Amino acid sequence: MKACVITIGNEILKGKTVNTNAAEIGRMLYFAGYDVHRGISVPDIKEEIGNAFRSLVGLCDVIVSSGGLGPTFDDITVSSFADEFKIPIVVDAEIYKTIKARIEKRGVEMTKEREKMALVPKGSTVIRNVEGTAPGIEYHLQSTKIFILPGVPSEMRSMLKHIENRIKLSNSFYFEDSVLVTGIYEASLAPYITELMEEYNGKIYIKSHPMLKGGEESEIEVEVSAKSEKLESSKALVTEVLRKISKIETQLKSR
Amino acid sequence: MKACVITIGNEILKGKTVNTNAAEIGRMLYFAGYDVHRGISVPDIKEEIGNAFRSLVGLCDVIVSSGGLGPTFDDITVSSFADEFKIPIVVDAEIYKTIKARIEKRGVEMTKEREKMALVPKGSTVIRNVEGTAPGIEYHLQSTKIFILPGVPSEMRSMLKHIENRIKLSNSFYFEDSVLVTGIYEASLAPYITELMEEYNGKIYIKSHPMLKGGEESEIEVEVSAKSEKLESSKALVTEVLRKISKIETQLKSR
Repeated sequence: MKACVITIGNEILKGKTVNTNAAEIGRMLYFAGYDVHRGISVPDIKEEIGNAFRSLVGLCDVIVSSGGLGPTFDDITVSSFADEFKIPIVVDAEIYKTIKARIEKRGVEMTKEREKMALVPKGSTVIRNVEGTAPGIEYHLQSTKIFILPGVPSEMRSMLKHIENRIKLSNSFYFEDSVLVTGIYEASLAPYITELMEEYNGKIYIKSHPMLKGGEESEIEVEVSAKSEKLESSKALVTEVLRKISKIETQLKSR
Repeated sequence: MKACVITIGNEILKGKTVNTNAAEIGRMLYFAGYDVHRGISVPDIKEEIGNAFRSLVGLCDVIVSSGGLGPTFDDITVSSFADEFKIPIVVDAEIYKTIKARIEKRGVEMTKEREKMALVPKGSTVIRNVEGTAPGIEYHLQSTKIFILPGVPSEMRSMLKHIENRIKLSNSFYFEDSVLVTGIYEASLAPYITELMEEYNGKIYIKSHPMLKGGEESEIEVEVSAKSEKLESSKALVTEVLRKISKIETQLKSR
């Protein structure tokens, strides 16, 4: 099953904000059993946001977006998504009531910017925002489950567990672990990793990450991951392969 | 002029690695005068890498990618890009010599994994890697300048200045600055920002970033950016608008 991530906001594209949201969402999707297939970042431009959703709906089983749900003029994710797929926008009465209660408590006015946060595509399921105002949105389109989340990290994060519970695959478990290999160049280790990958024929994935010190490889983090129908089987596979890698390290060093 | 960023690597999609490369590349492109238009992250899968380039060539004036240039089996950016556009792959004699000298100094063997790092699409200009082995690549396709960089941050970073010098626009200067607004909700400030944006009719961009403390807005960073043909004009515009925002803050507070 495939999952994709859309992050929305000029600040991400121009590098003012490092995209930690994409990483946190990707992590959740991965451990929920999905292949994270594509990440797209787009600026706060209606057509770009619409295009990003359009290019992934039908292709991915799950799409999670973050950003563009706040009160300012360029928070346009809901309308961009809804207009792209010609879904009417409606006021969610429950959210409207919550916003109203909140602003009355604070003694501020109801403005159209605040009202906007109660607007959702018709047919949405609302995800409560315990950290802020704008709710998250769940919407099903064709075969794709779409989750539209706020961009404020604490608000986004507070909804991830809820989404994980909604989409977690019961027959797909990733497990990963790693080992540090020292005193061997990545390029020297590479052919052995290729061999192991072939031996396990798609059941495992090995990725080496060279750690650098003063521009020289000081050690390599070799990460092994496996996906299977049971967490225990994934774990067993990873452990077995990590042991083989340590053996290869010993052999290469004793040459 | 539009610029796009492609980041390649499973570790980014599954959130093991936070995508700082995309932010650093985006920052460079922005201050070189470009609108950063789209960011795409793809896993180490040939078709996905090819698709990402395909979807942006012709659409963007500049594409910068990072990742997938190392020695391991899944470092496949060069071949994925070249095969997608049917460009032959050739050995770069200069790079081959550098790699050979390097491994002889280290007393390790020339393997096909090391040789791979000297392969480039025919017609490329090579960008020297002063921090590691795999070179960067500059390739022009249709109207698009493509820069293919390594994913190791220090290596990627060492090439950014070179690229900036190659692509910097001489008639497009972004400038940005921000002011902290306290004691006003983002949604209360929002209509004034919309008004200012309308007054300046596309010449400036204002973005508010609420800072949260215990789930409540404590202050708002209001960022103003402007792009014009002269850096001085962009600066002057931003300063003028920031002054107006401070005035609005004072007015709202005195109510």
